[in-house]
Amino acid sequence: MRKILVIGAGKSTSQLVNYLLNKSAAEDLHITVGDISLENAQKLINKHDNGTAISLDVFDKTQREQAIQEATIVISMLPARFHIEVAKDCVTFNKSIVTASYISKEMEGLDTAVKEKGLVFMNEIGLDPGIDHMSAMQVLDRIRDKGGKVILFESFTGGLVAPESDTNLWNYKFTWNPRNVVLAGQGGAAEFIQEGTYKYIPYQRLFRRTEFLEIEGHGRFEGYANRNSLKYRSIYGLDDIPTLYRGTIRRVGFSRAWNLFVMLGMTDDSYQLQNTETMSYRDFTNLFLPYSPTDSVELKLRHYLKIDQDDLLWDKLLELDIFNPSKKLGLTNATPAQALQRILEDKWTLAPEDKDMIVMYHKFGYELNGTRKQIDATMVNIGEDQVETAMARTVGLPVAMATLRILNGEITTPGVQLPINREVYEPILKELEEYGITFKEYEVDYLGYNPDNVGG
Amino acid sequence: MRKILVIGAGKSTSQLVNYLLNKSAAEDLHITVGDISLENAQKLINKHDNGTAISLDVFDKTQREQAIQEATIVISMLPARFHIEVAKDCVTFNKSIVTASYISKEMEGLDTAVKEKGLVFMNEIGLDPGIDHMSAMQVLDRIRDKGGKVILFESFTGGLVAPESDTNLWNYKFTWNPRNVVLAGQGGAAEFIQEGTYKYIPYQRLFRRTEFLEIEGHGRFEGYANRNSLKYRSIYGLDDIPTLYRGTIRRVGFSRAWNLFVMLGMTDDSYQLQNTETMSYRDFTNLFLPYSPTDSVELKLRHYLKIDQDDLLWDKLLELDIFNPSKKLGLTNATPAQALQRILEDKWTLAPEDKDMIVMYHKFGYELNGTRKQIDATMVNIGEDQVETAMARTVGLPVAMATLRILNGEITTPGVQLPINREVYEPILKELEEYGITFKEYEVDYLGYNPDNVGG
Repeated sequence: MRKILVIGAGKSTSQLVNYLLNKSAAEDLHITVGDISLENAQKLINKHDNGTAISLDVFDKTQREQAIQEATIVISMLPARFHIEVAKDCVTFNKSIVTASYISKEMEGLDTAVKEKGLVFMNEIGLDPGIDHMSAMQVLDRIRDKGGKVILFESFTGGLVAPESDTNLWNYKFTWNPRNVVLAGQGGAAEFIQEGTYKYIPYQRLFRRTEFLEIEGHGRFEGYANRNSLKYRSIYGLDDIPTLYRGTIRRVGFSRAWNLFVMLGMTDDSYQLQNTETMSYRDFTNLFLPYSPTDSVELKLRHYLKIDQDDLLWDKLLELDIFNPSKKLGLTNATPAQALQRILEDKWTLAPEDKDMIVMYHKFGYELNGTRKQIDATMVNIGEDQVETAMARTVGLPVAMATLRILNGEITTPGVQLPINREVYEPILKELEEYGITFKEYEVDYLGYNPDNVGG
Repeated sequence: MRKILVIGAGKSTSQLVNYLLNKSAAEDLHITVGDISLENAQKLINKHDNGTAISLDVFDKTQREQAIQEATIVISMLPARFHIEVAKDCVTFNKSIVTASYISKEMEGLDTAVKEKGLVFMNEIGLDPGIDHMSAMQVLDRIRDKGGKVILFESFTGGLVAPESDTNLWNYKFTWNPRNVVLAGQGGAAEFIQEGTYKYIPYQRLFRRTEFLEIEGHGRFEGYANRNSLKYRSIYGLDDIPTLYRGTIRRVGFSRAWNLFVMLGMTDDSYQLQNTETMSYRDFTNLFLPYSPTDSVELKLRHYLKIDQDDLLWDKLLELDIFNPSKKLGLTNATPAQALQRILEDKWTLAPEDKDMIVMYHKFGYELNGTRKQIDATMVNIGEDQVETAMARTVGLPVAMATLRILNGEITTPGVQLPINREVYEPILKELEEYGITFKEYEVDYLGYNPDNVGG
């Protein structure tokens, strides 16, 4: 019997655990889910014969060490910053580990020890990072195998609401951590490269520099730039690539409206406001507008941000009820970002029957035998309900599949790594197709940025 | 013979040293100027009989301690972050010290020891901070002495170019540290209070929320908000004041144009650009614009920031030559802010014959015997040339005057302090008048923000 320890029983863990429990008889597995809340762990195990729920506080060294020692392999679904202590114990007790998080400097620092012990520390194997790496590397390697030279790579991912549950003017609901959505794009300029030219977008313009993306059968989306596209040059072996851009997908019009909050200063998380316990939504909005007691908050905002009365932007703001004088924030010493999140949660929280949707879009431009070509690859995945969400599926399944393959000796390359090797991405992408996570590929004309060589 | 040690021989020290040398015979003073550059120190002393120039490295403990031990009193004109080691030595060797910098936490931490030893550690006694504190406190105390209640305090200061040397479309030249001008307003939202309502302006809107200021005989100026106005509530004893606002003065139109750089992302100092050694001004500008090889950098910028061809904004940009393909930055690994500073220095550096100008504007609203009144106080000071600048005069003279008064036992209250006590501001403001640094006061109608109680 092989013992898998899953640490953390959050939203993204349910399908991961289901997958492993379903395979437990055939694969001779026992799944232990440990969480600070025993109840959460029990829900996931659901009294399955091959599962055990335990209460586990990862900050309790004795508890943590004991649980890890008893396991054959470990999965950490904790928030990224909490992986490292678990990972260190895994080195100590000779256990491989799988996470869906970006490799931190501390994690990277374990690489030598991990290799010496022949362990596999597989990270970034969820959705984004995860499926994005695997699906991109598969096409990139195929192009390179044929002798093609990759000259353009653009990649976009978004967590959205499914069309059947899309009931607001923003075409958006929170399908993941709302705080990350409110803070998105902060902390430095977005940096990327287009036809050899570096480009930088500051936060104050990020949501005004979108690109459109069409997906067959799903309509039009928009993408805004992620902060650091350029690190993917070395990760994907694209060191001299002239065009590299990564972005986040929203429905068209979201970013232009979101920019209003950026310009007002409502997304700032760096300072606390006064009296946010009893502050109304209207008073919150008024904090960011010029003082003028002879004018309404509505007109001040319209004038300040130059919004015409018949502009859909205005309806989007009204829909969020940001001028309501009766609704109170009810938060203690909130930052502007926390207050904005509170207001958005009224309208953007998924209803019990709502479904989410994951969208991924890659563009691969390349030269082969003197000709420029392009492959576009798209993936759309829609959730079943609020438990089996597309997000939990696309994050959890690759983690579970990688874990089983490491256990079974199919993934063996030791070290701290992410899923860019064939031995990892080929079988996992194939198996993901059985679960409806599939990419469609299109051969399209390579247009670049100046197909007709117009202008100067 | 009383020995005054002046550490630091920068731009702002010249008139300070002149003042002291001129008084040296009558007041029995010997002035030692210590600087890392002996030459700079020698220039200031100019072979005066009662002066000595020494080479002094403040990071050399032995040198520093020896110089301080030999002094009767110390003036530190070093950059603010370097005061603390000097100040600690002053505690050790029982010397009072004078600086023109904001009181740091470390400096504040010396207060108990300074008081125990009966020393005076006078800080923030330059221009801003300095003359602003003193001139504000004088009027505030006068209003309070009469039984008035202060209900509004607004205060603006600016370092500008004198009208006779104002030769560019921005009506601005660098009269002080250019780096501080480029980075102005960064690091957090501006926070202030108007008629009891807190207001916050994020950096991305700071330069679009200006107020106009008229000064008799000098025309119209504009002010944008400083970051932290609210700390002056406790400093000035205005704890319950409903309106408190501090700002920076520019000529009208500067801020609107400066905002273009903010929106482009050119003022960002948080990351380094590639290849800035050989990068042209044009290529630098293009970094922040959408990639489109079929369009000119000029048209992309106009479109991106919605600037009409006949808008003066456009001429301001052209004047700075930001589209020049031949001029190179010539900087190694520059941040955007450093690159922008380089470009601005071409056009905004004072010519040898240019004069600078200091402008200060205070508004004091108060209630007395049931009536609301207002006093506006303005100060304009124009430099003589590039050595005797208005900036060096207004920063250096109060420092020198305070030093002499501490030596002469006229300022005696011990502790780490700023010049808000009568024993300090009354005599110094009076003496500053002899040097042409004078305030004009106007009794004006108190208008507040809604004089006619219009609207709702």
